[in-house]
Amino acid sequence: MNKDKLKEFEAMFNPQSIAVVGASSGRKIGGAVVRNLQLSGYKGKIFPVNPTEREILGLKAYPSVREIPEPVDYAIIMVPAAVVLGVIDDCAAKRVKVVQLFTAGFSETGEVEPIRLEREMVARARRAGIRLLGPNCVGISVPAKRIPVETTGVVGQPGDITILAQSGGHTETLASAGLSRDIRFSKLISFGNACDLNAIDFLGYLKQDPETRIIALYLEGITDGRRLYQLLAEISPIKPVVLLKGGRTEVGREMAMSHTGSLAGSAAVWKAAMKQAGVIEVSTLEEMADTLMALQELPPIAGNRIAIVSQLGGGAGGAGVLAADVCTSLGLELPPFPGEIKDKLKSIINAPGSILRNPLDLSLVGRQPALLRKVLELLAGLADIDLIMLNERPTFLLALVSKAELQAINDVLVDFQHSDEKPLVVISPPGGMHEKERVKVERRLSQAGIPIYPSFERAAKAMANIIRYWGFRSRA
Amino acid sequence: MNKDKLKEFEAMFNPQSIAVVGASSGRKIGGAVVRNLQLSGYKGKIFPVNPTEREILGLKAYPSVREIPEPVDYAIIMVPAAVVLGVIDDCAAKRVKVVQLFTAGFSETGEVEPIRLEREMVARARRAGIRLLGPNCVGISVPAKRIPVETTGVVGQPGDITILAQSGGHTETLASAGLSRDIRFSKLISFGNACDLNAIDFLGYLKQDPETRIIALYLEGITDGRRLYQLLAEISPIKPVVLLKGGRTEVGREMAMSHTGSLAGSAAVWKAAMKQAGVIEVSTLEEMADTLMALQELPPIAGNRIAIVSQLGGGAGGAGVLAADVCTSLGLELPPFPGEIKDKLKSIINAPGSILRNPLDLSLVGRQPALLRKVLELLAGLADIDLIMLNERPTFLLALVSKAELQAINDVLVDFQHSDEKPLVVISPPGGMHEKERVKVERRLSQAGIPIYPSFERAAKAMANIIRYWGFRSRA
Repeated sequence: MNKDKLKEFEAMFNPQSIAVVGASSGRKIGGAVVRNLQLSGYKGKIFPVNPTEREILGLKAYPSVREIPEPVDYAIIMVPAAVVLGVIDDCAAKRVKVVQLFTAGFSETGEVEPIRLEREMVARARRAGIRLLGPNCVGISVPAKRIPVETTGVVGQPGDITILAQSGGHTETLASAGLSRDIRFSKLISFGNACDLNAIDFLGYLKQDPETRIIALYLEGITDGRRLYQLLAEISPIKPVVLLKGGRTEVGREMAMSHTGSLAGSAAVWKAAMKQAGVIEVSTLEEMADTLMALQELPPIAGNRIAIVSQLGGGAGGAGVLAADVCTSLGLELPPFPGEIKDKLKSIINAPGSILRNPLDLSLVGRQPALLRKVLELLAGLADIDLIMLNERPTFLLALVSKAELQAINDVLVDFQHSDEKPLVVISPPGGMHEKERVKVERRLSQAGIPIYPSFERAAKAMANIIRYWGFRSRA
Repeated sequence: MNKDKLKEFEAMFNPQSIAVVGASSGRKIGGAVVRNLQLSGYKGKIFPVNPTEREILGLKAYPSVREIPEPVDYAIIMVPAAVVLGVIDDCAAKRVKVVQLFTAGFSETGEVEPIRLEREMVARARRAGIRLLGPNCVGISVPAKRIPVETTGVVGQPGDITILAQSGGHTETLASAGLSRDIRFSKLISFGNACDLNAIDFLGYLKQDPETRIIALYLEGITDGRRLYQLLAEISPIKPVVLLKGGRTEVGREMAMSHTGSLAGSAAVWKAAMKQAGVIEVSTLEEMADTLMALQELPPIAGNRIAIVSQLGGGAGGAGVLAADVCTSLGLELPPFPGEIKDKLKSIINAPGSILRNPLDLSLVGRQPALLRKVLELLAGLADIDLIMLNERPTFLLALVSKAELQAINDVLVDFQHSDEKPLVVISPPGGMHEKERVKVERRLSQAGIPIYPSFERAAKAMANIIRYWGFRSRA
């Protein structure tokens, strides 16, 4: 990627100044965008642009981009489509580097005039050397630069996952999920209709971007499938790509056409190509977030052999039965424990109701931190186990132990994860009398690097995804 | 069902007194059970039994069941398996009606001596006319009688769903989920190894029980498959049965053998038989809770034609694309809106970024209560729509509207559901800056009879399940 190209991306991901065209004082979206930039602590300059207002949210407002007295790296356009061409001309005169169009009503309508308007806009921007993002998108969020998701204001902790999404709504949903689940982003890019900058441009950049270790991709369609495949096949051996494809069904495809004007193509061809390229394909946003969390926290996992602790601190053979069902049906293996391990487990546990096999039911002794530690260490020592999954239900535990004891139990899990003996994943089903405490435990464990999921099914899907990926990597 | 049989069940579901054998003062499980009964507000008498303690948690304790001076309807046994036979003899002498064994270490171990012990226990109980529940179970919870789940203490609002589960852990998990999601139970029955009372006994009762409208069933295996099939085929045309089958895979089956000593049988045969019987089969506890919520709140749904509002108060075409994908792949239909409806929608909405098709993207106007009401009424008037699904993300809305306005928007949804025009279901993805407000909205909507789900996928699965069921009912 040449220097000029890198400069374009610099203006997008580290803008020194942002103009908001269509800013307003009220509770309109043009007000929310300015307010969100202020509240998030963005350090660059913010220039609201509005034809009638003199001041917006304490900032001097300008009647047009041309009137802004300082350089503008990045302009967010929120005015109606009908007046966008004039704004592009203003941005050209001002030598704005990147223009992001929140504005919709272009090619996605499928109508002649809006399509023509989009083309004219692109032509004018190209003549002026402006790169366009969108239209019909929510642009870019960069947590390290305190640039929030422009619509919701969400800005989480900086991380090394980059979201590249043809849907602003999905960007918002993933950013919100990340905030609650400690999934940390380098960049979130919503590129909408992709009239100029498209998935291929961004993937080319992200392939090299040292701040992006993991890529999450939401696509509804692509104009150059061959190039996309090539790029993904180049990236996957270096960085995992988690792909969610919209428009996999007939109705979904029609909707994608209306949404971002995308032709979604044949599902079967896509799927086979993505598998070949080493891409991790998921089918829901939840599965995407679950898989990102696993990739973020866990080291490469060598194999698919799981030890399950079906319940921490209380008999839950039923959880073990369902966990075995879901894991094995996803291709994960639950190796039986050898006889001498069962004997050792018996010497540690020795309680009625315990089930000394894999899945392991600890019965009531699982709430004793010292015994729990011994059990985890024993499992970690097994050569044919690649990963441990453990079920914890604080509502159950808190009927038997104090909050301090609950903390001590979770100390064991955190210490174990930090010991790097064997990767640990926790399942914590939501709901119950102690939901607040449960959420606290969930936050604590996820902040300590333990991926945590609401069900065995979701955990197992995420694990199967990353294990398949690491298998691809080791062959690549 | 004859009168004597009904009396047995009366002692289980409306016991006037409960003895806890193995009660203790400390934070052991035998203490938790007594404390949970006290805290939940159970109105009957509680008799702790402990060989050494005189008083437990402020209640007079008895050295043996024989010493209790008043009648005992229901005894919970928590002492080790080795001393259980003596306790059964005590209960026989005392003429206890029902004995529930929390105690494990019987036939589920697969070992000769424990199996013999279980048989001897059953023989002694039968001679004394005692019905046994378990062993290896958490017994019965009846919210209307303030009898909590014995281990966790969870007791929610009374309702008309009965859980019948061969796993105490699943009973606990569903009760906890119900507490948070306003799923209301008539009874929760955990029957473990089913040495005496088994699924068939309880189903026979629940078929007739006027307080049970919906049955949730978790089974790991059954000794009399023909009778079970027959019963389920008799019940399904009257009451929906939601079944989760544990042990669907080889490893799951082995685990089920260790857990409750059940032989799980062939998955394919089961599946076909259950479909034939009209049973709603689900594959996870989440899907079970989701389906129960739908059955609890929604009237019978005539067909599979869905109108989707892909986002309330903000463009979310991407959500619409994925919603279309997931719904149609589950066999739900999204009928296109006729031309005159699109014209009417245009006259109501008239905003760039809106997508006036099914799924419908309301763009920014969806946050105006009056317009939202008009849109919902328009959709409700469509003859070929059976159900409306609507996506609401409070973190997005609260960037644009006040909390009072958010309330007004949700007032529209609540009023609409109460108008009984067309059933409404809401999707609300978790996470974000306003998670607390989102949870409040979620609680409010679910309490107002609107089933609410964290993703389109989960909502669509639950809808597909109940629509299939109502189709079966209309044919039956």
